[in-house]
Amino acid sequence: MGTFTLTASQGRARRGTLATPHGPVETPVFMPVGTQATVRTLSPADLKAVGAQIVLANTYHLHVRPGEDVIAQLGGLHQFMAWERPLLTDSGGFQVFSLEGFRRVDEDGVEFQSHVDGGRRTLTPERAIEIQWTLGSDIAMAFDHVIPGGADEATARDALERTLRWLERCKKRHEQLREGVHVGTTARRHDEGEGVRRADVPTCNQTLWPIVQGGTLPALRTECLDRIVALGPWTGIAIGGLSVGEPKDKMYQTIDVLESRLPATLPRYLMGVGFPADLVAAVERGVDMFDCVAPTRGGRNGSAFTPEGTLNIRNAAFRTDGSPLDPSCDCETCTTYSRGYLRHLFMAGELLGLRLLSLHNVRYLIRLAAEMRSAIQRGGDAFATWADDWRRRYQHTGVA
Amino acid sequence: MGTFTLTASQGRARRGTLATPHGPVETPVFMPVGTQATVRTLSPADLKAVGAQIVLANTYHLHVRPGEDVIAQLGGLHQFMAWERPLLTDSGGFQVFSLEGFRRVDEDGVEFQSHVDGGRRTLTPERAIEIQWTLGSDIAMAFDHVIPGGADEATARDALERTLRWLERCKKRHEQLREGVHVGTTARRHDEGEGVRRADVPTCNQTLWPIVQGGTLPALRTECLDRIVALGPWTGIAIGGLSVGEPKDKMYQTIDVLESRLPATLPRYLMGVGFPADLVAAVERGVDMFDCVAPTRGGRNGSAFTPEGTLNIRNAAFRTDGSPLDPSCDCETCTTYSRGYLRHLFMAGELLGLRLLSLHNVRYLIRLAAEMRSAIQRGGDAFATWADDWRRRYQHTGVA
Repeated sequence: MGTFTLTASQGRARRGTLATPHGPVETPVFMPVGTQATVRTLSPADLKAVGAQIVLANTYHLHVRPGEDVIAQLGGLHQFMAWERPLLTDSGGFQVFSLEGFRRVDEDGVEFQSHVDGGRRTLTPERAIEIQWTLGSDIAMAFDHVIPGGADEATARDALERTLRWLERCKKRHEQLREGVHVGTTARRHDEGEGVRRADVPTCNQTLWPIVQGGTLPALRTECLDRIVALGPWTGIAIGGLSVGEPKDKMYQTIDVLESRLPATLPRYLMGVGFPADLVAAVERGVDMFDCVAPTRGGRNGSAFTPEGTLNIRNAAFRTDGSPLDPSCDCETCTTYSRGYLRHLFMAGELLGLRLLSLHNVRYLIRLAAEMRSAIQRGGDAFATWADDWRRRYQHTGVA
Repeated sequence: MGTFTLTASQGRARRGTLATPHGPVETPVFMPVGTQATVRTLSPADLKAVGAQIVLANTYHLHVRPGEDVIAQLGGLHQFMAWERPLLTDSGGFQVFSLEGFRRVDEDGVEFQSHVDGGRRTLTPERAIEIQWTLGSDIAMAFDHVIPGGADEATARDALERTLRWLERCKKRHEQLREGVHVGTTARRHDEGEGVRRADVPTCNQTLWPIVQGGTLPALRTECLDRIVALGPWTGIAIGGLSVGEPKDKMYQTIDVLESRLPATLPRYLMGVGFPADLVAAVERGVDMFDCVAPTRGGRNGSAFTPEGTLNIRNAAFRTDGSPLDPSCDCETCTTYSRGYLRHLFMAGELLGLRLLSLHNVRYLIRLAAEMRSAIQRGGDAFATWADDWRRRYQHTGVA
């Protein structure tokens, strides 16, 4: 499990199939984000209807609420959220970085204050892996030390070294779990109870992926990647610490630098990216997987992706507009309702509006990935042509 | 159109079929409330999935936002909200009674302050009918003067007389509209624009129903009913001004008093009711149609109907409960998710929770009505037996 098969490529753009315990994933792929074991406003049936192949869930959030023990007792994360397709869990490293309030990083791990009850919790590499094992996701992510986009070299170096040391600990713990060692033996004093017993943990053929850090410093990035590869073998590699405040060209540059050194046989996951133009640019640079809250967060704000860029449905121009949100889209929102009705739902504060725009935006990114797979499959320079056409039409407003 | 066919009865309980321009409605029937042209959190596809036959929308709310002119330009209410099954619109009389803030009732109509922009608007019997005609609902309600549950006889008499005078004006305006007179000729100075032109109004075979008022005073109620019947013919009759703060037994008593005098051949609509036990008690007393926000409002508060009464999903007892919300229910919520997961959605503030409980509660009332139709159909004393069994099992907690 976790094997990746490349099926076509054009330039650096690739098409492939990732095998997981819960079925195959066709790449390039966009993964909707289900932070709290639900993709905000959408049901599993909605997600299937829009063609979601794999969903991301957040280890930090689920550890804090309802707790991985509750999810294990309810049959593991797939059964809990009624999603029988593949799941990827992040490690909590990013939330420890992004959530405000008290946190203290030392060599052992991170002590932080729960955003729910204010209680102190500790995440270590071992705990992050145990929690993900207990959740039973198909792909677990290593616990990393994320730093802001503009960090200096000393800070980036420090975080890189820690990330690599933590990766070794993550790998060791994950191997122990795969060999049947009890979960909970490294549970810490601030955690609830004593962890879960082996019998509570669903059988799982989970695979662990490392995360490349190193800020926007090319030398650190390539060093980090090389040292990660040396610690392998791996079944996939993630690029973390991007889309965290750095300029766009720095992000693309970093991907460019990494691309030539990334093992061709492993899927490449660009964490936290997102916007339509970023997906296209990253697939051109050999990236296979993406996740981002932009489609659902934007949807709840009234912002909708279209082939011409983003629009805000609250705009008075849509008051009596009888046309679909995106005439080229096949989702329930675009085939059922007028812009005028969707605008009304937002102006009237109706919850259905949040759902219908979220549904469309997720469908938009899933179709975008499908279009790219299709263009790559066609061969020749079909993908490059497609990408040029797409960009000409799309004016990224950065609104969503 | 608007014809009603009784197909079975037991005691006072009746089963029938109401023909409307958008298809038949089997009674007894529960109508979900789509105040702002959407049943809160639910899509038309959801409503069909739970078996909704007819939806109620609120004239007052839609007049204020987005305005009936906008809806007319977007094809009328059915097309606007993508609901091709029957629609009933209330007249706005109840909202003028229930919404807080400035309102002034005189013989002409009601001047009130918009809950959206604070602007002054006037609803008259004629305007209420014109708006509903413009919306294009299948069943329009007369504009009535609603008073609180505990009103004295003088107040109730005054409101009754006004309701009857207004009913004559509603009927006259409705007849004019059916004969092709322009909408908007009685538009008032505070209203937006000049109303809509004939060409904008969808062809419609709308039927107008009167509303029996009279507080909880039996003599006034029967007088009101008799005088309404004399103003007929009608295609249906509503009982209004109940479930507005009066004791339950007063409500049942009022229905008892009216039942023997209500024309057997007309459908009887008990407005704003409701809770499961009220539906059963009212069907026993010969009522055919119901609407209430209880299932969706309760659902958004975490309250769920079950055959044993209401439960609140936030209860800590459900934390690791792997069983369905209502094991006897066939809705998506009950066949897909555990109570533990639903509780998590509510504790985590996830919007999917509001939707899933609303969906279940609406399905619950629709199934309750379907069970009653089925028991009535079986003949003998099947319905009485069913009602006794149902009540024994159901302990109404009044929580929902």
